[in-house]
Amino acid sequence: MSEKAAVLVAGSWGTALASVLADKNMEVALWTHNEAQKDEINTKHRNERFLPGVDLSNRMVATTDMEAAVSGAKAVVMVAPSSAVREVARTLKPHWHEDMLVVHATKGFETETLKRISTVIAEELGCDEERIVVLSGPSHAEEVVKRCPTTVVVASQEEKQADLAQDLFMNPYFRVYTNRDMVGVELAGALKNIIALGAGMSDGLGYGDNAKAALLTRGLAEITRIGVEMGANPLTFAGLAGIGDLVVTATSRHSRNWRAGFMLGEGKPLNEVLSSMGMVVEGIRTTKAAHTISEKYQVQMPIATQLYHVLFEGLDPRTAVEALMGRDRKTEMEVMSLETWEQWHT
Amino acid sequence: MSEKAAVLVAGSWGTALASVLADKNMEVALWTHNEAQKDEINTKHRNERFLPGVDLSNRMVATTDMEAAVSGAKAVVMVAPSSAVREVARTLKPHWHEDMLVVHATKGFETETLKRISTVIAEELGCDEERIVVLSGPSHAEEVVKRCPTTVVVASQEEKQADLAQDLFMNPYFRVYTNRDMVGVELAGALKNIIALGAGMSDGLGYGDNAKAALLTRGLAEITRIGVEMGANPLTFAGLAGIGDLVVTATSRHSRNWRAGFMLGEGKPLNEVLSSMGMVVEGIRTTKAAHTISEKYQVQMPIATQLYHVLFEGLDPRTAVEALMGRDRKTEMEVMSLETWEQWHT
Repeated sequence: MSEKAAVLVAGSWGTALASVLADKNMEVALWTHNEAQKDEINTKHRNERFLPGVDLSNRMVATTDMEAAVSGAKAVVMVAPSSAVREVARTLKPHWHEDMLVVHATKGFETETLKRISTVIAEELGCDEERIVVLSGPSHAEEVVKRCPTTVVVASQEEKQADLAQDLFMNPYFRVYTNRDMVGVELAGALKNIIALGAGMSDGLGYGDNAKAALLTRGLAEITRIGVEMGANPLTFAGLAGIGDLVVTATSRHSRNWRAGFMLGEGKPLNEVLSSMGMVVEGIRTTKAAHTISEKYQVQMPIATQLYHVLFEGLDPRTAVEALMGRDRKTEMEVMSLETWEQWHT
Repeated sequence: MSEKAAVLVAGSWGTALASVLADKNMEVALWTHNEAQKDEINTKHRNERFLPGVDLSNRMVATTDMEAAVSGAKAVVMVAPSSAVREVARTLKPHWHEDMLVVHATKGFETETLKRISTVIAEELGCDEERIVVLSGPSHAEEVVKRCPTTVVVASQEEKQADLAQDLFMNPYFRVYTNRDMVGVELAGALKNIIALGAGMSDGLGYGDNAKAALLTRGLAEITRIGVEMGANPLTFAGLAGIGDLVVTATSRHSRNWRAGFMLGEGKPLNEVLSSMGMVVEGIRTTKAAHTISEKYQVQMPIATQLYHVLFEGLDPRTAVEALMGRDRKTEMEVMSLETWEQWHT
């Protein structure tokens, strides 16, 4: 009998990760609370809202029953939007036991508490946070379901758990690296969505590739700075979960964060952007969280701050981008914040 | 009377930098050895081969006479292809004097000697290499001539020279940062063309954005590693001349290196690619140089090595990219080469 894994919930990335597991001949239970979506997956092998036109494996079985989903599973993969993670973990709790691997692939924070996703899951499951694994990296769901070559990183403070996650997912088109810096991988994945939003805004304003590249460079320095302040290894931001994911999110039309930013840059108001997306835009919530974090840790986050003003205080996007371009810095090392890196390395 | 600068030669980037200077109300002499191009620039204010459809400032005067070009100029900006730099510097020598600022914006090496461009220029002018300034960063010429916001970095070991170059170019749409790590800025600008070529090849093979992002991440680690070995500061590779320029070169169809790689990925032979480009593709020469450098410094450069096999030994691009994807690494920090960074910081 083949091994079983459960994936919660059936969004685009959850469905894509379920496909990776199905391609490893696993039995995959895909949990959703949407009856119509469940029926579509089980009878038509499609998830049209999230992955239009893609034929799914018939090894993937959707269910709205959490007990049925996780029963007999050796691993649970949690891919809920950041705002739903706590509730999903709470629903999982009665059916979960200690020897079940937990991997999450949500890029964000719990907005109200500013907690990382692994903290939220560990609290609800009543387990040690060190055993939770995060999966991140440059990985558009649309390409993964087409079996395009993709590399990701899995991180956990417990080495054994990361190794188990690597074995779980690794296949010829889905290459998995391990990293021990779970905090860094989680922060990079969440914070990069802010920069992707800003890159989309710059594109929506028609500023061109040169301006976007400058924004990405400065954005990466900014999220590395705050990441280090929160306990991450700066090198993680130079890896797949940092630069890798930032590039793919900020330069591809597949990206929701980029698209949301693009529409804002074109002058559309936030509520119109949100309603036209039809999916969660994590970067918008993360910008709110980062604004609070930057005040709490007393670390300057100029890009996140300008975006916060655009998103929540009605600042004109053009004024925001011009404020960023015109900042009074003269040497590059001021921008790169050499001090932070040296501090880490001494 | 307005100040004067000379720009050598009238390719796309040279012409764009001349436009930046003309927008600062300078008198700009643009040196070329092509009579027809000279006439086109002076009578039609166009440089159709390199910047089709762009109207140039009439403050820009082309000449084939080096003495006339540099006479009275306070600065000389050298933007020749890497293979022509030595000859252009030799032609400049009799007309150059010590108080003339020298800025170069060539991204490559002298292929035969593996010397950096500033070394070649200093040798020919008979001056101290420390006074040469390099200008680099994410800056498509096509966008600069349209006055799209652009940021670049100028680096020199003599701080005063970099400050002079910053003052020379800085304008409202062209933002200039200084950096003291001239070696790093030169190496990053040259080596990133290899990775851009590889990214184009991956796109030409139809591998998608996930694969390209992985290649860029690993490529940046690779060029940082060799850069550090050659005396650069790794942080420079995280700045505009590194990540910034890499992103813009590897993700934009404006980029010649990306386009050459794309055609190779589609299966076109090298000679056909070169003849269809009509312009120099620095990444191809740089790959040859890097292959030799990697052997000389005993530093692994897997991407450059695979590209070398494709370009000069007929290896199938698909085999090369698959060899890169399938390399037997398990943890991300092996890829990022943590040791190199720690070594730099201790």
